[in-house]
Amino acid sequence: MRAQDSGAAPARLKDVAEAAGVSIKTVSNVVNGSVPVAAKTRARVEQAIEQLGYQPNVMARRLRTGRSGVIALAFPELPSPYFAELAVEVIAAARRHGCTVLMDDTGGDPAAELRIASGLGDPMIDGVILSPLGLDQAELVARERPIPLVLLGEADMGPVADRVHIDNVTAARDATRHLVEQGYRRIAAIGWQDPSPRATAQQRLQGYLEALAEARVQPDPVLFPPVRSYFRPDGAAAMRRLLKLPERPDAVFCFNDLLALGAMRAVHEAGLRVPQDIALVGFDDVEEAEYAIPSLTTIAPDKAKIAELAVSLLLERIANGESGAGQRLTPGYRLVVRESSVRPG
Amino acid sequence: MRAQDSGAAPARLKDVAEAAGVSIKTVSNVVNGSVPVAAKTRARVEQAIEQLGYQPNVMARRLRTGRSGVIALAFPELPSPYFAELAVEVIAAARRHGCTVLMDDTGGDPAAELRIASGLGDPMIDGVILSPLGLDQAELVARERPIPLVLLGEADMGPVADRVHIDNVTAARDATRHLVEQGYRRIAAIGWQDPSPRATAQQRLQGYLEALAEARVQPDPVLFPPVRSYFRPDGAAAMRRLLKLPERPDAVFCFNDLLALGAMRAVHEAGLRVPQDIALVGFDDVEEAEYAIPSLTTIAPDKAKIAELAVSLLLERIANGESGAGQRLTPGYRLVVRESSVRPG
Repeated sequence: MRAQDSGAAPARLKDVAEAAGVSIKTVSNVVNGSVPVAAKTRARVEQAIEQLGYQPNVMARRLRTGRSGVIALAFPELPSPYFAELAVEVIAAARRHGCTVLMDDTGGDPAAELRIASGLGDPMIDGVILSPLGLDQAELVARERPIPLVLLGEADMGPVADRVHIDNVTAARDATRHLVEQGYRRIAAIGWQDPSPRATAQQRLQGYLEALAEARVQPDPVLFPPVRSYFRPDGAAAMRRLLKLPERPDAVFCFNDLLALGAMRAVHEAGLRVPQDIALVGFDDVEEAEYAIPSLTTIAPDKAKIAELAVSLLLERIANGESGAGQRLTPGYRLVVRESSVRPG
Repeated sequence: MRAQDSGAAPARLKDVAEAAGVSIKTVSNVVNGSVPVAAKTRARVEQAIEQLGYQPNVMARRLRTGRSGVIALAFPELPSPYFAELAVEVIAAARRHGCTVLMDDTGGDPAAELRIASGLGDPMIDGVILSPLGLDQAELVARERPIPLVLLGEADMGPVADRVHIDNVTAARDATRHLVEQGYRRIAAIGWQDPSPRATAQQRLQGYLEALAEARVQPDPVLFPPVRSYFRPDGAAAMRRLLKLPERPDAVFCFNDLLALGAMRAVHEAGLRVPQDIALVGFDDVEEAEYAIPSLTTIAPDKAKIAELAVSLLLERIANGESGAGQRLTPGYRLVVRESSVRPG
């Protein structure tokens, strides 16, 4: 939708129809999803939409179809690059389906999450993709306006909404197993929360403990100090605590990349080196991980796949007038090995 | 408004009335400002609103007052942490004024910028804060729906909208002057664009050239290679070109932090060190700059001030039913000196 030249007037339905060699009615059917269109024709129309940067007028569209083509995307931590990178993929996926995305930063506040789960009461919002942090399942069930809703991430809200998430336990186990395979044995974890660990902390700790059990390493709670949040300063503070232990760890699995990048800085400030003195693994594969010095080994969720699944599931629910029914989709992930965890030969 | 406990259902007008010991009508008068309310009663109602985390239903509010309390914030590059950090400040400022923010990533596309400058045609959006990249002034003048609009950043759109921005030329001159003062003389710049430099590139190059002129250093175009965009890979690619020069630079002023962080990685991969072999200065003071190894010297715009000025100016325009009239507000910035630019003694 962004191919359009600066000087050109906005493309109209008619322009798309001409470019695709189909009738205006056919373009309308593709855009509104109201009537089935043959796959080949649909592809031609979608290509023309992309080339011309066609964007339907949302209010006019809503008057015609009862739908605006606007979806809301709400996440709890805007300064977290993982959410920014995921949002870029959601926006791209929505654009491929002819939709506009408005974003909301809930700060993880339950009341804010509940408000956006009802589309803020704005009839323009067709549906919502929400990554919840503090939301309560009972509140979600009783929300004011049950518009189509797809949840992202670890928090399970039962059959009230669809959910797209990667297998966090297995991914965390793979990350820790990689450190075991590199020969590390005193492996710490940064990201546990106490009290009230969020679902992310619970699932990633579980994977960490499973990998230790496999390696017949006894877990030691001093090696997983709790953090308040998942930002660089939290990772740096936790690493400083680990470095003060009588016997310091030789490797750390961090529950996200920001924690790992904060930890990396703390290792540097202590006059030690990554990976020579301490190996590090993160989680998220944000772009910064690739550029850090040393570059960061991490778990890379398939962000493009997460976004595509969430958007197409949401649009299907919107088209069928359903609010979502507890469907679970589990896209994949990869372990990306970089400099921070490879034991110097 | 996020004081509400996780377990509670959203507070309603009735709950506020009960807690404050007043009638529902009185609460409504306080919320909508439609009828004067005695100061003591108003204080009691406001306290109950705060305690219960009451948030008026935006559509109901709009029906009553003609305003929804929702503003849109649109920026061109979501993956850029500068915009994420600025958005966090805008959301916080809006919350202080009782407003909700919805965000839009325009990708810098002129058509997308024009659509959001008209509030997407959504009557729920009271006003817009937009950081434009490709938008044309003539298009902006002729936009569909001239709702209140405050622009952020370097692009000047004339008297059609208010604008909040720091003095980029002076800030870029200060950054370069710092390198001169550290004794560097072969100072490169990364961030120029050719053809069609954006306003940011023009103003920061001008500041760089002014500092060189002050130091009686002849500018050399091979020392400011053009970049396509302002992300880490662009900075790394430009630095690799600079490192191939017969006489390589001893310092580089990068027009944003991401360019500098990409350049830092390229220096590392070439087996050289920052600042021993090449000094680096960035622009934006994103959190990553503080945690990078070495930490990055940078220009820190006063993001909280930019956000507060933009939100209060926008709300003033909304309250007065004005669309904006070319007012210019110029908050300050600081040079933050860190490890990347201090010449080893």
